[in-house]
Amino acid sequence: MSTVNLSLQAMNALAKEILIAHNTNEVNAEQVASALTAAEADGQKGHGASRIPSYAAQAKSGKVNGHAAPNLTKVAAAALRVDARSGFAYPAINLAIEAVSELVSETGIAAVSIANSHHSGVAGHQVEPLAQKGLIGLSFANGPQGIAPWGGNKGLFGTNPIAFAAPRHKKKPLVVDMSMSKVARGKVNVAAQKGEPIPEGWAVDKDGNPTTDPQAALDGTMLPMGDAKGAQLVLMVEILAAALSGSQFGYEASSFFSGEGASPNVGQLIIAIDPGPFSRKTFAQRMEHLMRAILDQPGTRLPGVRRFDLRDAAAENGIDLPQELFNDLQSLRG
Amino acid sequence: MSTVNLSLQAMNALAKEILIAHNTNEVNAEQVASALTAAEADGQKGHGASRIPSYAAQAKSGKVNGHAAPNLTKVAAAALRVDARSGFAYPAINLAIEAVSELVSETGIAAVSIANSHHSGVAGHQVEPLAQKGLIGLSFANGPQGIAPWGGNKGLFGTNPIAFAAPRHKKKPLVVDMSMSKVARGKVNVAAQKGEPIPEGWAVDKDGNPTTDPQAALDGTMLPMGDAKGAQLVLMVEILAAALSGSQFGYEASSFFSGEGASPNVGQLIIAIDPGPFSRKTFAQRMEHLMRAILDQPGTRLPGVRRFDLRDAAAENGIDLPQELFNDLQSLRG
Repeated sequence: MSTVNLSLQAMNALAKEILIAHNTNEVNAEQVASALTAAEADGQKGHGASRIPSYAAQAKSGKVNGHAAPNLTKVAAAALRVDARSGFAYPAINLAIEAVSELVSETGIAAVSIANSHHSGVAGHQVEPLAQKGLIGLSFANGPQGIAPWGGNKGLFGTNPIAFAAPRHKKKPLVVDMSMSKVARGKVNVAAQKGEPIPEGWAVDKDGNPTTDPQAALDGTMLPMGDAKGAQLVLMVEILAAALSGSQFGYEASSFFSGEGASPNVGQLIIAIDPGPFSRKTFAQRMEHLMRAILDQPGTRLPGVRRFDLRDAAAENGIDLPQELFNDLQSLRG
Repeated sequence: MSTVNLSLQAMNALAKEILIAHNTNEVNAEQVASALTAAEADGQKGHGASRIPSYAAQAKSGKVNGHAAPNLTKVAAAALRVDARSGFAYPAINLAIEAVSELVSETGIAAVSIANSHHSGVAGHQVEPLAQKGLIGLSFANGPQGIAPWGGNKGLFGTNPIAFAAPRHKKKPLVVDMSMSKVARGKVNVAAQKGEPIPEGWAVDKDGNPTTDPQAALDGTMLPMGDAKGAQLVLMVEILAAALSGSQFGYEASSFFSGEGASPNVGQLIIAIDPGPFSRKTFAQRMEHLMRAILDQPGTRLPGVRRFDLRDAAAENGIDLPQELFNDLQSLRG
């Protein structure tokens, strides 16, 4: 497959230009383009440039309000609420991160729920900025249905990522970021395109039976990581992200991909913790003990490290887009 | 196997009497006995009466300080710290739950870390009382080493449970409670006693190789639920429970079972969230929509329901202890 190499600056500018040409204001286009570029740089292609065409279609149709200004409210002493107002998630998330990281310096722990939001992209990017400021971050997001409740066969929940970041002294933070599905739905798509079977345990068909047929899997539901235990975590995330913010559940939310339908209006929750007061300032030292104990064992690595390496490489060498996607993006320019 | 039936009151009194006879003061003995009885009633036998002999041995030797009074400090506007002072976990947890549920009514979210603690028993019991008060609860606990970092072969982390509870309108709360190991180590013990193989995927031997030999598994480490993804959750819990509270990591902590050695001094974290301000009071209604969407599918049930049923049955019919355990307990009475 032939590819086109772009610098990160070029990808950012291209994404921004396309969004502005599709009913999105400059402030929002800037933030969305930055988030997609950061995802692409980290090798998270499912949240990167491949999203631009569907984002543009949704902004054009008004399914996502490209002109929405997210609205921040302090609802209790350590609690914030951002209403994304059916706009893109990233401007709401940026506002939320900024506000919660200020508030937590007074309160030790603080949380911000994000209501009426959209696809929130790389979950790790919602907590890494907190860890860069010396804070622990936790985030939870729901999405359109893809996972059934355990024992059932109809998709109710999204793949509902959890992210966690912890600061390290003079080092890049530890970042954990995972969807709650066993594998990303994208992997099933790839198998379907290639006409190859998928391993048992990834997904079930529309009747809830195990399947290795990727098309039957796409018509069915994805299985959670950790099976029955993971299914409970999926439910936990759904409640923290959607019920707490007063947003739509996975089974109520429209697709993040098509330009049709109402806004998905899903939710997110970001929690920030200042380790200083809890740990009596021992946190940084203790983290290093733990990281060393892990890395002393051959064959181990710390979560998130691979993404940082890819990010460094992308800053130097740019990113490679499939020719077909690049052509699509060219045709969408203003 | 013959069993002895005891009322919950009788088990509670027996546990209390044994603890008091083993260097534990009445206030602590009362709380520990209640926690063990509640575990037994919920069918969580690994955290119930079977713990009494090892708790007594640890209190007698001073490995656990049976006379410790946990100490509560407010460390920031929404942040509390309890030092369990190398005593039993339950008095510290009870103090923590009481304090955090008061504080959160002002702050929307609040957290309490518990330092220098011990075996914290049924994780769900740390969050269920919060949900009974209309709050969302999250808890994280670490324990002595049983799980290796992903790619490694030496145990660093405990089985590190996560619990979550959410309130329901005029109904028992939703309670999620799970260890991060694929199965409890106790199941491997049972297989070893019976001389039966264990399924592949539960554990690895001391060299990190897959094994179906339960003895090799006991000499090795348990595998996390969800494999590589679960391993990251194990690490997240270790940081939230131990690094944040300034407690010992799994690889530093002594056994929860033997009377020998220093105090394990592990940690816990409990987070309380008041859903009212975040959700603009829509939470209860939205929870019911979600619960109904799950239960509308045949074959599903809500997490925690089985335990409530067992609890009701135990209140009525008491609990059954193995004759051998009952004899042991009789011999430990004061």
